[in-house]
Amino acid sequence: MNKYSFDDLKNFTFNVLKSIGCPDEDAQLGAEVLISADSRGIDSHGVARLSGYVRLWDAGRINATPDIKLVHETPTTGVVDGDGGLGLVVAPFAMKIAMEKAKQYGSGWVSVRNSNHYGIAGYHSMMALEQDMIGMSMTNASPLVAPTFSKSRLLGTNPISVAIPAGQEPPFVADMATTTAANGKLEILQRKQEEAPLGWVQDQAGQPTQNAFGVKEGGALLPLGGNRTNGSHKGYALSSIVDIFSAVLSGANYGPWVPPFVSFLAPPDDPVGSGIGHFLGAMRVDAFRPKEDFFNHMDNWIRTFRDSEVIDGADKVLIPGDPERAMEAERLSNGIPLLGPVETDLKALADKFSVKFPSSL
Amino acid sequence: MNKYSFDDLKNFTFNVLKSIGCPDEDAQLGAEVLISADSRGIDSHGVARLSGYVRLWDAGRINATPDIKLVHETPTTGVVDGDGGLGLVVAPFAMKIAMEKAKQYGSGWVSVRNSNHYGIAGYHSMMALEQDMIGMSMTNASPLVAPTFSKSRLLGTNPISVAIPAGQEPPFVADMATTTAANGKLEILQRKQEEAPLGWVQDQAGQPTQNAFGVKEGGALLPLGGNRTNGSHKGYALSSIVDIFSAVLSGANYGPWVPPFVSFLAPPDDPVGSGIGHFLGAMRVDAFRPKEDFFNHMDNWIRTFRDSEVIDGADKVLIPGDPERAMEAERLSNGIPLLGPVETDLKALADKFSVKFPSSL
Repeated sequence: MNKYSFDDLKNFTFNVLKSIGCPDEDAQLGAEVLISADSRGIDSHGVARLSGYVRLWDAGRINATPDIKLVHETPTTGVVDGDGGLGLVVAPFAMKIAMEKAKQYGSGWVSVRNSNHYGIAGYHSMMALEQDMIGMSMTNASPLVAPTFSKSRLLGTNPISVAIPAGQEPPFVADMATTTAANGKLEILQRKQEEAPLGWVQDQAGQPTQNAFGVKEGGALLPLGGNRTNGSHKGYALSSIVDIFSAVLSGANYGPWVPPFVSFLAPPDDPVGSGIGHFLGAMRVDAFRPKEDFFNHMDNWIRTFRDSEVIDGADKVLIPGDPERAMEAERLSNGIPLLGPVETDLKALADKFSVKFPSSL
Repeated sequence: MNKYSFDDLKNFTFNVLKSIGCPDEDAQLGAEVLISADSRGIDSHGVARLSGYVRLWDAGRINATPDIKLVHETPTTGVVDGDGGLGLVVAPFAMKIAMEKAKQYGSGWVSVRNSNHYGIAGYHSMMALEQDMIGMSMTNASPLVAPTFSKSRLLGTNPISVAIPAGQEPPFVADMATTTAANGKLEILQRKQEEAPLGWVQDQAGQPTQNAFGVKEGGALLPLGGNRTNGSHKGYALSSIVDIFSAVLSGANYGPWVPPFVSFLAPPDDPVGSGIGHFLGAMRVDAFRPKEDFFNHMDNWIRTFRDSEVIDGADKVLIPGDPERAMEAERLSNGIPLLGPVETDLKALADKFSVKFPSSL
């Protein structure tokens, strides 16, 4: 696979976002959020999605010059209306408000409506780290997931991210879909013509299947847990909490009404709210105890877990965030690999907007 | 099985808690929290544990007359020191503070140290409902759970509860251990001499096992997900977040240092904090949007999910909280069944303190 530098892909994305009419600052931020997915190894949420955003813009479903506004607030809570803008830009706007509130009052919580796909959840939660805050980020997404005992797709892969700063150690960063496996992992199996593990997918009748095309053929992704015996009702509950915090609190669409990311599927014609929803939060660690005490114990927590005895067949015990940080270090030095079809797709975008596509490393 | 009325079991518990020296008000509250587990069908966390609390008190590890204090606060955050008291009493104290802060500032978040087992997580989160708030509750617990890839028990079953009010519909109440299955379910299989499903337990070497006695024989419970392929790293991350919010924020013990609930196991002699930790939170729904709008959409959310098409072999699609509410209605009318060994245990307590044990219904 050809590899590209972070800066080149970011710059290319910046130019494309400029071409659809985003102001400089938004194009800069949007590009950074998008490519941070690639650098952290979450390829499904990075530059591979750029043409998807553009198609939504072509379809009039993304507003490149939104008037993003805080429409309701209390000292520690708020609702942001994203005015149909890029989630990549709307979510950081909301997170900044949450952090400003946390600075003043200890914690801040902002629910967002009228937004679009916001990239990786972890980008937004990690914004809190540099200010010694715990960051939280979640979003709802187009319905692909069936509740336990249901045949219907009512929930998205609805991720949760929690970022917790430490002292000497790198931060704890959880960033996870509330399904057993993200859709991107199924797509890899589809390309390889391989079966999916049991617990990832149910078929159209709601029965467990190993068919990696099960979702495309009318089935659904399964909530974390995979089946009732192994706790899928817990994954279903977590995904529901994300949906409610992101959309029922803000006035966005929820459940089956969440508009699809792909432009070839029309949004429901009976919306219950505006756009998709996010939920962002921040808590100052020194709103609970002196910063140094927190950092010392967090370092001890991390070392204790990392140094615990590893099982046969595994390399080491990981702290949430370890794999993405290792990937980021590797890709920032050696470049970000792009699949052939993604390159082709991006070159078409380059042509469409007469923007230069970077050379590979 | 003999059945007992809620009021009789609560009154019996009140008398036992009085006998160990709890003030009237604490004994009343502690009894209510404990028996609410039995009425909601979470038998492992109810009156069956009463003798366990008493043994900890006998061992000098529970303070019946604690001076529970808010030791640090900002407008929206705080830390409570439980002074070694019953978690059943300490947690509601902290939750009230979180709700008071939410009333004034929109949201409130309290981390608790120096506490003990707090009963069911759902009791505390549900306190928020009557004030039209979303309630959150979590606690760490004695180490029984191994992180993904680790042989060591470093986490408790660390439950999370989120309670969300609705309008016409009953509330959404998630209350779940962050493991595939709670330890109580394993105990049932042990009594029946049956095997555990794969994904619940690993053996001493950290390999998957169906041995229901696997944890007792040096193994560990598995985080929600059950194995890496099916997302156990997500359950591990969730359980870790509970541990950090409950203990690293407050100054309680975390990870392998959390003191055991059973009196025959000594607490670690190198504690990193005080007692066990909880984390309680509340957000006013009208701190985000008008109450009526929230309630209408929450009702619509609940009905949409409940009315979705059910898979063959299941009865209906459930909303988190449905099973416990149905159980509560049944048990409040028909009584709470107690296993023979639990009755024997409670009768011994009755003798110990010369307290009357109630007649069965």
